[in-house]
Amino acid sequence: MRIVIDAMGGDHAPECNVDGAWSAAMEWKDTQIVLVGDQAKIEPLLKAKGTAVPDNLTVHHASEVIDGDDEPVKAVRRKKDASMVVAGRMLKEKQADAMISSGNTGALMTTGLLVVGRMEGIERPALAPMIPTLDGVGVLALDLGANMDAKPEHLAQYALMGSLYREKVMGISKPRVGLLNVGTEPGKGNELTKLTFPLIEQLPIHFVGNVEARDIMDGTCDVLVCDGFAGNILLKSIEGTAGAMFKILKEQFSQSLKSKIGAALLLPQLKGIKEKMDYSEHGGAPLLGLSSLVIKGHGSSDANAVKNAVRQTRIALQSHLVENISKEISGK
Amino acid sequence: MRIVIDAMGGDHAPECNVDGAWSAAMEWKDTQIVLVGDQAKIEPLLKAKGTAVPDNLTVHHASEVIDGDDEPVKAVRRKKDASMVVAGRMLKEKQADAMISSGNTGALMTTGLLVVGRMEGIERPALAPMIPTLDGVGVLALDLGANMDAKPEHLAQYALMGSLYREKVMGISKPRVGLLNVGTEPGKGNELTKLTFPLIEQLPIHFVGNVEARDIMDGTCDVLVCDGFAGNILLKSIEGTAGAMFKILKEQFSQSLKSKIGAALLLPQLKGIKEKMDYSEHGGAPLLGLSSLVIKGHGSSDANAVKNAVRQTRIALQSHLVENISKEISGK
Repeated sequence: MRIVIDAMGGDHAPECNVDGAWSAAMEWKDTQIVLVGDQAKIEPLLKAKGTAVPDNLTVHHASEVIDGDDEPVKAVRRKKDASMVVAGRMLKEKQADAMISSGNTGALMTTGLLVVGRMEGIERPALAPMIPTLDGVGVLALDLGANMDAKPEHLAQYALMGSLYREKVMGISKPRVGLLNVGTEPGKGNELTKLTFPLIEQLPIHFVGNVEARDIMDGTCDVLVCDGFAGNILLKSIEGTAGAMFKILKEQFSQSLKSKIGAALLLPQLKGIKEKMDYSEHGGAPLLGLSSLVIKGHGSSDANAVKNAVRQTRIALQSHLVENISKEISGK
Repeated sequence: MRIVIDAMGGDHAPECNVDGAWSAAMEWKDTQIVLVGDQAKIEPLLKAKGTAVPDNLTVHHASEVIDGDDEPVKAVRRKKDASMVVAGRMLKEKQADAMISSGNTGALMTTGLLVVGRMEGIERPALAPMIPTLDGVGVLALDLGANMDAKPEHLAQYALMGSLYREKVMGISKPRVGLLNVGTEPGKGNELTKLTFPLIEQLPIHFVGNVEARDIMDGTCDVLVCDGFAGNILLKSIEGTAGAMFKILKEQFSQSLKSKIGAALLLPQLKGIKEKMDYSEHGGAPLLGLSSLVIKGHGSSDANAVKNAVRQTRIALQSHLVENISKEISGK
């Protein structure tokens, strides 16, 4: 297994990527890990470790970096030697089996489309992060931002890909697949969801029908299918509401001495809730529908998150995720 | 001013409607209030008050009732003598100036469209409830469920109507109007929002541009424009997340004696937060774009909520809301 890591992507790059890659290389000796990025910045970090660099960890130089505020398409087209683009090219040229990047999300989706390339039969790849649920398990939601104007056929492919990912990589047998909608009855929704429903119904997956936004956190499904626009509204509403509630809690709890004491007594519980609501705790998000595996790490990934992304990528490769999706989509 | 109240609509009908109408009639002597519904059920409630029925409160008999689980279009078409439909007809026939109903939302929107009728120049009326914000002021969001497949022209009309409502009825001068979108930059979004943006820009309102779902609770705008599908996802995500967080709070706070004591000390604050997050605290939702004023009360309305809906309706009538919208839309 050969996994490339975009060493320059993410808020804590390159340190977190180097440290995470190092730990991963130490743990999984059967995996070749390549750090792609500025050699002058990466090498000193490796040297600082004080011991010999693991045999299965190498550096591939790339002179440019795509920043968080770069315009995605322009950046990918112009910065031909950016770490993210070089990593994508290595995937395309079969020098690697999978790539991980915690960099600019839009640029990574563009790299996926323009550099790595789509899987045959897939018109629009999808970004599939986890949304938190009350039971701590989470739901895989796709598409979350790659495809703003989805067609029913795209959503049906998302259902299939999401189900396979949840089964093969996350070990859930017969994942419950739901369609994000405004009501649970089959006839509900806008034109897109009304046309999508019968298409998903015909697929060889466990379709549980329409799911309302308010029921998602109760864990009513394992895979949630939606277009990129609605998915973005959903994810950011959850994020915004949780954030707002924490703000109010903080404000209210410092109102009086009595409430301050109460809050102090509840500190461990309040921390636990914050963690439960934090969807960034749930690992990297796959970009599904590409010719090779691409995993998007969170922008705020630390070394541990990078190592976990490698763990996730290994399972996906071992379970032949891409080949399985390809077989279902185009029969090849 | 003549206001009809659908006496049979809502979870606590007809009691709450009778009590609310009574209080409103007592407070506002210049307002004629008509309770529409089953006389055999309404009269005993009025008699039970023990004092003479106010002169400005009358009953108009209607033999049928539309239930919460009735299929909206069928119910409105078939139950010609349903309290909601009769109230709508009184509006159409100019026997009343406005109507209030806390009944089946879909049926009320259908009554608005098929019985009351649209305003000239409006293709799709919009339901405009309030969404809670951190500062307790709330944002008027439209459309929240009436129009699943909106066109850019519809959204532009929502922007205009919402701005007028917020100004005339809620007393906000130059309301800040935002467009629900996946990013704040003007070029962001799906086809619908991309085409809508320049249309709203040309309107004589205070357009603050795109607003992300996560920023809404911070009160970044006074009016939020969205299509019915995205609006439903937004509202129900907020509802679901707030509900989920209260569940986790409850669960976590009863974990140990220490946390139980903490929670007891914080009880008043926790209640305050629950109220802040409860969008049903924000009064009735107008159905904008009809030829007369229709206000949707919450299904769970109590007598006080019904009285508040009358207050809101009075302000809307006094400020000539419908005439003002009509002037802006069609120049008439």
